[in-house]
Amino acid sequence: MATKHLFLLPGDGIGPEAMAEVKKLISAMNEKLGSGFVTDEGLVGGSAYDAHGVAISDADMDKAMAADAVLFGAVGGPKWDAVPYEVRPEAGLLRLRKDMELFANLRPAICYPALAASSSLKQEVVEGLDILIVRELTGGVYFGEPKQIIDLGNGQKRGIDTQVYDTFEIERISGVAFELARTRKNHVTSMEKRNVMKSGVLWNEVVTQTHKARYADVKLDHMLADAGGMQLVRWPKQFDVIVTDNLFGDMLSDIAAMLTGSIGMLPSASLGAPDAKTKKRKALYEPVHGSAPDIAGKGIANPIAMIASFAMCLRYSFGMVDEADRVESAIAAVLDEGLRTKDILSEGMTEVGTVQMGDAIIAKF
Amino acid sequence: MATKHLFLLPGDGIGPEAMAEVKKLISAMNEKLGSGFVTDEGLVGGSAYDAHGVAISDADMDKAMAADAVLFGAVGGPKWDAVPYEVRPEAGLLRLRKDMELFANLRPAICYPALAASSSLKQEVVEGLDILIVRELTGGVYFGEPKQIIDLGNGQKRGIDTQVYDTFEIERISGVAFELARTRKNHVTSMEKRNVMKSGVLWNEVVTQTHKARYADVKLDHMLADAGGMQLVRWPKQFDVIVTDNLFGDMLSDIAAMLTGSIGMLPSASLGAPDAKTKKRKALYEPVHGSAPDIAGKGIANPIAMIASFAMCLRYSFGMVDEADRVESAIAAVLDEGLRTKDILSEGMTEVGTVQMGDAIIAKF
Ligand SMILES: CC(C)[C@H](C(=O)O)[C@@H](O)C(=O)O
Ligand SMILES: CC(C)[C@H](C(=O)O)[C@@H](O)C(=O)O
Repeated sequence: MATKHLFLLPGDGIGPEAMAEVKKLISAMNEKLGSGFVTDEGLVGGSAYDAHGVAISDADMDKAMAADAVLFGAVGGPKWDAVPYEVRPEAGLLRLRKDMELFANLRPAICYPALAASSSLKQEVVEGLDILIVRELTGGVYFGEPKQIIDLGNGQKRGIDTQVYDTFEIERISGVAFELARTRKNHVTSMEKRNVMKSGVLWNEVVTQTHKARYADVKLDHMLADAGGMQLVRWPKQFDVIVTDNLFGDMLSDIAAMLTGSIGMLPSASLGAPDAKTKKRKALYEPVHGSAPDIAGKGIANPIAMIASFAMCLRYSFGMVDEADRVESAIAAVLDEGLRTKDILSEGMTEVGTVQMGDAIIAKF
Repeated sequence: MATKHLFLLPGDGIGPEAMAEVKKLISAMNEKLGSGFVTDEGLVGGSAYDAHGVAISDADMDKAMAADAVLFGAVGGPKWDAVPYEVRPEAGLLRLRKDMELFANLRPAICYPALAASSSLKQEVVEGLDILIVRELTGGVYFGEPKQIIDLGNGQKRGIDTQVYDTFEIERISGVAFELARTRKNHVTSMEKRNVMKSGVLWNEVVTQTHKARYADVKLDHMLADAGGMQLVRWPKQFDVIVTDNLFGDMLSDIAAMLTGSIGMLPSASLGAPDAKTKKRKALYEPVHGSAPDIAGKGIANPIAMIASFAMCLRYSFGMVDEADRVESAIAAVLDEGLRTKDILSEGMTEVGTVQMGDAIIAKF
């Protein structure tokens, strides 16, 4: 098979431990299947700051831009709470998203049958849950200018952020949502606050037009984002694909993840536009969970979200659908056998560490 | 007792039906206790638009400003989906909040024991839940300028909203939160997105300073708003008072409300600063639920949130603590007896309509 370039950015906290399990899986695939993965590794977040004084170096950015896909662990931790805003750990992730133009963030919220009982929601509310949140990732209040703190004198400061969306940005993210809905239950719910925000008015208008012009076969609903959050908690199975902006997507996808009772299990994909010639998309894959500094280095982190992120990479970046299915089945199989890391442990199950969990999944693959 | 001027704005949808039950309670209090309430009534939202072409008339705004307290029902409905942005139903509510300078929105999320089983969350997760969300209500992205849609030509538009917070706004809302925490479990959690937003950086800084300078006896935690949303779903009882900005407060308070399994039950209070001379605060009381146009006019709406909002009015605007307690106990008593409106109906309970529920509560008062 053709050589496939993966750039690994394990980051901080439990990122490196989780990434180590994916590295083992990559080696196994190269050996057994001749999958042809070539990996290189860089620094991001606090670990990049410690080494270079920035949240990601230009050299590592270049490698990320050149790779076929980037695998990202997690960034941040109390060690870097006081570093300047511009070089805080999150700045590395935000630069990757922005410079690689990864506008489409796909966050599946799936409830694994073996874990339905461990949600804080009633089992019947979450059992069989399968939602896909499509979050806009390069616009909105994350990147709009002005974004600054002004000193007004007299001990007064003013903090300003700007929410900006252009028609084309809303069009392309809703296109992604409608396309994905066609491969699922054919139902998109768009969420904004058009009753308060002008960007919400435009969002609603452009999604409606895009639907009418190109995706009239898909069922489309609109919901105010606050009502959407409530409905996610009340009866999440009413949703198939949810499309929303960067900030609402941040909140809503975390809530959806928590519903499943297994935030340590959930992967995400951040995709750019297909290249006009090669049709290839820039892409970054990362677990939804963060760096969890409190459990880092103890060998107890759950590597499943990172491994499932690699499965998304196989599917979306390399079209290796069979292999992606096999990884996902291997995860489900070890859960069915009762293996659990500490975060998802329950009565009667077998507690394992990060390495054992990774080994068990690779053995089933 | 001294005359107490209440200005009633029932609004749209189920607003008028719910308000009718409060009016009966007010009459009962005047007759039995000589409470001295004088009421006047105006139009807001779609009903004001139909009558005057605006979401609230200047004359009604003047009455709201002059009253001792405003009782507000709900606004909006599909009938007004296409009216111009400036006169949409919500504009009436936003003008009231802004012109009356109601910067502090208090949203208790309480789980009534009789309803713990009807939450989508597991009973043990929500039973006994008692959180107070203190939401900033006159700043942030709701009111910041520029707020507009620009035509860029070539079929492209740009939607812009501006998130702005000044030091004094953060100081005064966190002061309210700390004061209220002292009357509860003495614990405040402040939520923002300081890892992405400059207004979040300032928010965090000012809350920390206010705490240090004036409220060091209160326990203070900081949480990123997305993590806060997750924690609300995972284990809400970890919170006592949550203080957050206008937009995060909108999302988080709706989610907290839904946790209790009874959004039709939850009241809110929106308060201004105490007048330098009279010490009186401007105030508006409204249910957390919306106008529910689908069930309006059917006599099945739950009036409890509106009645509980009036209880908050007794407590905060008139210092009538005993009477407020009695209203709240009356609500709990009818629930214990098994009376339920359709929205909270469960196996073995007695279904009643809006009027019967109102009558039953007044009879227990
Ligand atoms: C780490 C942070 C900047 C990031 C975000 O807010 O987007 C995270 O919460 C996420 O959802 O990926
Ligand atoms: C009606 C709407 C403008 C309002 C808001 O967004 O503040 C509502 O959702 C609320 O929470 O009171």
